[in-house]
Amino acid sequence: MTYVSFPMEKSVDFTAIGRLCIDLNANEINRPMEQTSTFTKYVGGSPANIAIGMSRLGMKTSFIGKIADDQMGRFIVDYLRRNDIDTSNVVTDCTGAVTGLAFTEIKSPTDCSILMYRDHVADLNLMPQEVQKELIAKTKMFLVSGTALAKSPSREAVFQALCYAKEQGAVIVFDLDYRPYTWKSPEETAVYYNLAAEKCDIILGTREEFDMMERFEQNPERSDRVTAAKWFDYSAKIVIIKHGKEGSIAYTQDGKSFRAKSFPAKVIKTFGAGDSYAAGFLYGLMQGWTIEASMEFGSAAACIVISSHSCSDAMPSAAQVHDYIERCNNGEITSS
Amino acid sequence: MTYVSFPMEKSVDFTAIGRLCIDLNANEINRPMEQTSTFTKYVGGSPANIAIGMSRLGMKTSFIGKIADDQMGRFIVDYLRRNDIDTSNVVTDCTGAVTGLAFTEIKSPTDCSILMYRDHVADLNLMPQEVQKELIAKTKMFLVSGTALAKSPSREAVFQALCYAKEQGAVIVFDLDYRPYTWKSPEETAVYYNLAAEKCDIILGTREEFDMMERFEQNPERSDRVTAAKWFDYSAKIVIIKHGKEGSIAYTQDGKSFRAKSFPAKVIKTFGAGDSYAAGFLYGLMQGWTIEASMEFGSAAACIVISSHSCSDAMPSAAQVHDYIERCNNGEITSS
Amino acid sequence: MTYVSFPMEKSVDFTAIGRLCIDLNANEINRPMEQTSTFTKYVGGSPANIAIGMSRLGMKTSFIGKIADDQMGRFIVDYLRRNDIDTSNVVTDCTGAVTGLAFTEIKSPTDCSILMYRDHVADLNLMPQEVQKELIAKTKMFLVSGTALAKSPSREAVFQALCYAKEQGAVIVFDLDYRPYTWKSPEETAVYYNLAAEKCDIILGTREEFDMMERFEQNPERSDRVTAAKWFDYSAKIVIIKHGKEGSIAYTQDGKSFRAKSFPAKVIKTFGAGDSYAAGFLYGLMQGWTIEASMEFGSAAACIVISSHSCSDAMPSAAQVHDYIERCNNGEITSS
Amino acid sequence: MTYVSFPMEKSVDFTAIGRLCIDLNANEINRPMEQTSTFTKYVGGSPANIAIGMSRLGMKTSFIGKIADDQMGRFIVDYLRRNDIDTSNVVTDCTGAVTGLAFTEIKSPTDCSILMYRDHVADLNLMPQEVQKELIAKTKMFLVSGTALAKSPSREAVFQALCYAKEQGAVIVFDLDYRPYTWKSPEETAVYYNLAAEKCDIILGTREEFDMMERFEQNPERSDRVTAAKWFDYSAKIVIIKHGKEGSIAYTQDGKSFRAKSFPAKVIKTFGAGDSYAAGFLYGLMQGWTIEASMEFGSAAACIVISSHSCSDAMPSAAQVHDYIERCNNGEITSS
Repeated sequence: MTYVSFPMEKSVDFTAIGRLCIDLNANEINRPMEQTSTFTKYVGGSPANIAIGMSRLGMKTSFIGKIADDQMGRFIVDYLRRNDIDTSNVVTDCTGAVTGLAFTEIKSPTDCSILMYRDHVADLNLMPQEVQKELIAKTKMFLVSGTALAKSPSREAVFQALCYAKEQGAVIVFDLDYRPYTWKSPEETAVYYNLAAEKCDIILGTREEFDMMERFEQNPERSDRVTAAKWFDYSAKIVIIKHGKEGSIAYTQDGKSFRAKSFPAKVIKTFGAGDSYAAGFLYGLMQGWTIEASMEFGSAAACIVISSHSCSDAMPSAAQVHDYIERCNNGEITSS
Repeated sequence: MTYVSFPMEKSVDFTAIGRLCIDLNANEINRPMEQTSTFTKYVGGSPANIAIGMSRLGMKTSFIGKIADDQMGRFIVDYLRRNDIDTSNVVTDCTGAVTGLAFTEIKSPTDCSILMYRDHVADLNLMPQEVQKELIAKTKMFLVSGTALAKSPSREAVFQALCYAKEQGAVIVFDLDYRPYTWKSPEETAVYYNLAAEKCDIILGTREEFDMMERFEQNPERSDRVTAAKWFDYSAKIVIIKHGKEGSIAYTQDGKSFRAKSFPAKVIKTFGAGDSYAAGFLYGLMQGWTIEASMEFGSAAACIVISSHSCSDAMPSAAQVHDYIERCNNGEITSS
Repeated sequence: MTYVSFPMEKSVDFTAIGRLCIDLNANEINRPMEQTSTFTKYVGGSPANIAIGMSRLGMKTSFIGKIADDQMGRFIVDYLRRNDIDTSNVVTDCTGAVTGLAFTEIKSPTDCSILMYRDHVADLNLMPQEVQKELIAKTKMFLVSGTALAKSPSREAVFQALCYAKEQGAVIVFDLDYRPYTWKSPEETAVYYNLAAEKCDIILGTREEFDMMERFEQNPERSDRVTAAKWFDYSAKIVIIKHGKEGSIAYTQDGKSFRAKSFPAKVIKTFGAGDSYAAGFLYGLMQGWTIEASMEFGSAAACIVISSHSCSDAMPSAAQVHDYIERCNNGEITSS
Repeated sequence: MTYVSFPMEKSVDFTAIGRLCIDLNANEINRPMEQTSTFTKYVGGSPANIAIGMSRLGMKTSFIGKIADDQMGRFIVDYLRRNDIDTSNVVTDCTGAVTGLAFTEIKSPTDCSILMYRDHVADLNLMPQEVQKELIAKTKMFLVSGTALAKSPSREAVFQALCYAKEQGAVIVFDLDYRPYTWKSPEETAVYYNLAAEKCDIILGTREEFDMMERFEQNPERSDRVTAAKWFDYSAKIVIIKHGKEGSIAYTQDGKSFRAKSFPAKVIKTFGAGDSYAAGFLYGLMQGWTIEASMEFGSAAACIVISSHSCSDAMPSAAQVHDYIERCNNGEITSS
């Protein structure tokens, strides 16, 4: 069964709105950051990673965001262009804001952390009047990243973009991507996440992210089914709840649920798993595949990313993902 | 025809959320404030005025808001209680915020202005977790005042209250009450006003307020009918657009429109006209009267308020309004 | 002995820098503010009161400050002009700041309190480049009020003004006038008060104010003599420490100390006592009177102010003060 | 002649107060940062560099500052300790502040720039009550870096430290180190720089930095002699004005001036030149050398730093500096 249908007459496959930032990945791994001395620079930010992933998978992709007027900002926009992403709605900040940074620390494959620089960042300065209605009007699938709701005026830009996307008939995806910094309180977060989720067709998040959204509600057993059901009363067709190592479950409007097959991987770090999964899954849906096939493809894409040093740079092509699945099926890849 | 039906089993007729402040009305009128020397203190704020108006008209009324922990705050809550308004959800601020002030200047009956003190005010500190779901659950009609959307965390409190009111089946009224101070930009205002209006059954505002909400839209002729039609696609049943001296028009879901009869008045000042109109009109609806009868009752209530020195203190009882209408009909009252 | 000598060739007797605000005095006294209903408007703020006092006493007076661009601001500047105070260095704010307010509550002659509005006030927006060096250059005595140090850019304006006054040879008076609101911490306050006091010839304050300044020092017995001695190592010639009802002590550079005679009064409220005392005392010094005679004159001026409803409006002329002293000496005035 | 004499009985040679941050130096040089991909992490910040320089030269050194409670902060304090710098007055921030960052870009040896991250940085959170009077009391030479004046509460911490240093008899050095970001206006900067400079024995800065301090003054020809003379009326004994490639001039209280001999260098970048110069010069003074000899030593130290990739890490030992001078004198080193 097809749960979402895409407006195929539109010319852009995928548009994301939100954060564009820089990852600074420690080159020396398996040690605390106090003991690292060099870092490599990559484009980062969850929606940027997903957009790069979609473009690598062959989707015609564009981005709505804001960059700092500095070397980091110019590096980001250059990288997006080199990856065939349309940046005509990537605006340059003129208030002296900086580019968000994420220094990554990989103490072990399962103990990774991030040191964030999110004060006065350009991406949260995107204004509602800077969002191009015309771009959203020609987009099949529109993705909102929750961190873009963290602060004004980016918060208003997202709500205005949602208004355009709803009105223009795009399939709307909400990647919860909740990061506590920047937000003033969990209550503030819950209110705006709920307001945004009401308008979305596909919602993806971890169990913990959905818990945060249920701050004012009753779901004492943290039931995934209760969580998903709420959104089917609004606009949702698919709700995916991620349980880390235990895998993800997709709930659909018709009361069904699906679990994805998982693949082995030689894990270097966990960063980027969610973004590559999202890109793979959404790509599958756009190909008209079943939920299960799309989830499987997402899982394999995630395995490729967590087996390498970067996030954005490691986003695979469709051929690479198919190849990875085949090699897993042949027993050529085993867990580390 | 009845456009809204009230959940008659509920025990509270009317609950308003929003600003509670102090009016300081110059005692010497018909001169600039530079030349006045004494002021009289009244409870003020649009939703406070409407709640006082509803209570005077005999409705069981409650209020959701926040007051400063000072003499002004205590004066406000005392006044509400003396007017039979339930204040169990009026919270006291503990951050050192102050009570909002409005010094009124009456240069002539038609040239009135307000000097506002709205920095660091207690009413905008209401938090979403302070809104009592139980109170909203037992309310027939719930009124939101737009100024409460001007700033966090009051903005979030309003959205959370709207969520409760929608879920619990109250008839929701949105009094636009737009005041430019406090807001950061007209775009920010438009985004949140639209998000709130989507959830409301009855929307009241001036033509200028609706123009502000249409900042991202196409309505070049500023057509009231176009404006109203948009909201009938969401939750609205009645949209009232006020044109100052030219009177108000009520649009209804079924494509009809209504104009109210107006009454003569010996005008002292224009402050409070909208609030008393709203109270009178909503009272009429709750009595099951027609739109026209409700509008007429609102107009007469407004005439009584603009003929006196205060706003809140002058809110009339039902008997006073009926009497005013009768005296007008008898030709006993003529314009000044 | 003369402790300070004035540059008699200069054309302006007295210039003050700092806060200009509005007092709203409850007309109904001897009750809490919750039970008052009308207020009378006066010009207020400690340095404003002292400047008005000096002008009433016949001194050629000017003021350096900033007013809001509103009716309250215009009322203030009009009042200063009507009191013969030069306002050529009273600047109008253009950032939307408001006029500071002080609502006074008189529960009893000895239980008075103030409800302050000090958020976003115009007076604290005075910038260093707005201070006219030329005005200070022609001033005999220059008074700084401590509240003007509470926030940038007014803080910088005061330090720049002190720099001009020192360089140009004015006698510099520091009226500590410490009000905890607006300041971020007592440590911040202590640092800037000490930096300013280093440059001043005459320092006036309460014991509690000097305690605050000694936050980083050793004066465990809170000795006035220790307190005063510190400042004689910098620029001070006279240090006056006020002990409320127990009266004031003036310490001088040569190791002497003086106590003022006090007078009976029919006290209405205590507000304004310090300001009228300061004006009377500084006037005496400028006449070449002894410390004792100047203090006595200040005490009598203070008695006149606390026997009336306002502060600024009640500031006496020299004839009134002399008359009050005479009547006290004749036994015509006794305490209430 | 000796211009400054040090309190030789004290146990700590040198204490600096101010910024502790991280330099991220692009490993790929002679290109814009858009084209670099890896960075190496070093301890940075002008006073940190000078303190490291002094310690390498054999001086018993301590530091007063604040670090973020994160991996960057811990890296900094570890590095200081490994360089024999006492960190007992390096406080850890507990407000979530971050470590300041400086990404360096070396387009060519003469075209270097810095991309700064200075929002919400830990170093500017140092509070006056955190400065240990006991540490300053046992210090011979105390150095203040101007950037620590940029914001509260660090600004107050510096003024309090200056108060202790003055009272306790340390020789006080003011390294102007003016960076426009963080400051609200040039007027604000000028006011606090002047207030601090009044209390200092040795003042070092560029001509442009002294221009900034003269914003409210008359020195139309930008005369170094006029600039220096002002400070001899306060506490200064030596004023050094730096003119970039044209070299530095030291003015002394007795009206003399001195120019330093310069040395050839194979320049990689200009960063760190001023800090190594300061360390070398101050070291010379503490050895009792003449002004000329001290300046020469400072120049040679600067040449060593600008010939290498880092700042802090390249700070030379005394033996290295002596060796460099000797090799220059022998013609073994020539300019690149």
